[in-house]
Amino acid sequence: MTQTKPITAGIIIIGNEILSGRTQDVNISHIAQKLNHLGVHVREARIIPDIEEVIIETVQQFHKQYDYVYSTGGIGPTHDDITAGAMAKAFGRELELNQQSVAIMHKRYGTEHLAEGRLNMARMPKGAKLINNPVTNVPGFQIENVYVMAGIPEVMRGMLDFALQDVIPGNRIVSGSVHCHLTESDLAGGLRELQDLNPNVEIGSYPFWRIGKFGTSIVVRGQDKVSVEKTISQVKDLMVSLGGDPECETDF
Amino acid sequence: MTQTKPITAGIIIIGNEILSGRTQDVNISHIAQKLNHLGVHVREARIIPDIEEVIIETVQQFHKQYDYVYSTGGIGPTHDDITAGAMAKAFGRELELNQQSVAIMHKRYGTEHLAEGRLNMARMPKGAKLINNPVTNVPGFQIENVYVMAGIPEVMRGMLDFALQDVIPGNRIVSGSVHCHLTESDLAGGLRELQDLNPNVEIGSYPFWRIGKFGTSIVVRGQDKVSVEKTISQVKDLMVSLGGDPECETDF
Repeated sequence: MTQTKPITAGIIIIGNEILSGRTQDVNISHIAQKLNHLGVHVREARIIPDIEEVIIETVQQFHKQYDYVYSTGGIGPTHDDITAGAMAKAFGRELELNQQSVAIMHKRYGTEHLAEGRLNMARMPKGAKLINNPVTNVPGFQIENVYVMAGIPEVMRGMLDFALQDVIPGNRIVSGSVHCHLTESDLAGGLRELQDLNPNVEIGSYPFWRIGKFGTSIVVRGQDKVSVEKTISQVKDLMVSLGGDPECETDF
Repeated sequence: MTQTKPITAGIIIIGNEILSGRTQDVNISHIAQKLNHLGVHVREARIIPDIEEVIIETVQQFHKQYDYVYSTGGIGPTHDDITAGAMAKAFGRELELNQQSVAIMHKRYGTEHLAEGRLNMARMPKGAKLINNPVTNVPGFQIENVYVMAGIPEVMRGMLDFALQDVIPGNRIVSGSVHCHLTESDLAGGLRELQDLNPNVEIGSYPFWRIGKFGTSIVVRGQDKVSVEKTISQVKDLMVSLGGDPECETDF
């Protein structure tokens, strides 16, 4: 069993529309799932408003704290799209028209449709590296360990697949889950003992409620497959000993 | 037109299952919508792991920064439910068995089913006030301006309706939206001018993509209904002048 220093990431969702409840965020779970498959631990996700000083402060903190940072939102053409400018300030760089991005947009839209508004999307911090956008072509950008992507989920997903090519995979985390119709309270004592017995896995307990009936999902996660398998088997034994009906799923 | 100091809130989602991508959060948008209807501005939402020092630090910061703080998750009966203990530490209070909560659980589960695990859910910071739970009875709790609720959406929603009874409504924010099949880039210049002309409303621009066709929703929000209506009408004129087909929705 090898345990190395985990590779970490933070997610920043920029957008008043999420904080007003108008839009349901679906970017966090998508980014988190993809990173998790690469063995990268998402430590935090923060939804912040389109306010320059808040973006700057959050980006500076995440940049120092995590190996990789992914932001979504605020890179469109309108007056409320202030992410690129804030990113430039966060890194003390000039905001400039990225010529490579301009060229891509020329090709996509033709010169006559390249209005001022659209050109705003090519303004990026000096030295930024483009992130391809297979959906609408207009690129996102990377600056140091921060990947700046669009907020529209379909567009973000396309960009993310390119952004993730840079990630050095961590030790892959394997997981399995067991669910049954016992309550969390029934399982609590036994689970605490199993967690103490198996310190190199993380045992999570999640109550569920389907068709008016409560039950519990136990998720076991870790870098070492053998330990995860052993713990899952112990959780099943615990459930059976309490009169439960365990059903098991693993991702390995 | 009166503009008073806005009433603010922060949301803290506690749970490894959201950060691993296993579970899609739906609590943020629900809480945000409810607060928005009460005229409370949600300034930030943070998803953090079940790690004691992270919970303590986040709660202390939010407690100072916002008028109201809502947390979800980590108040169940198992070893990974550490929110109550972290809240007690954040406020320098003892963690104690809340006798009022114990009494509610006695009534609900009967004495013989009140196992140690289940009793864990009655451990709260000294002086905490209960938040009713109409779904599973086991209460959440309030400590100062922080409302600590369950993570299961159905249960959280029940608790939230009680928690929100404490909220002093702010000036209600009214909003309207106009959408059309023009792109954000087409609208960008005109919108910037309209935002400058109407400083007491907030104009948000949100691209959408339906059935393979792009369009833009413009959302106008503010405390003054007349200004919101005037701005919406100007946005419609802008769209028509650009060859667009505006469709309008308002919440007033």
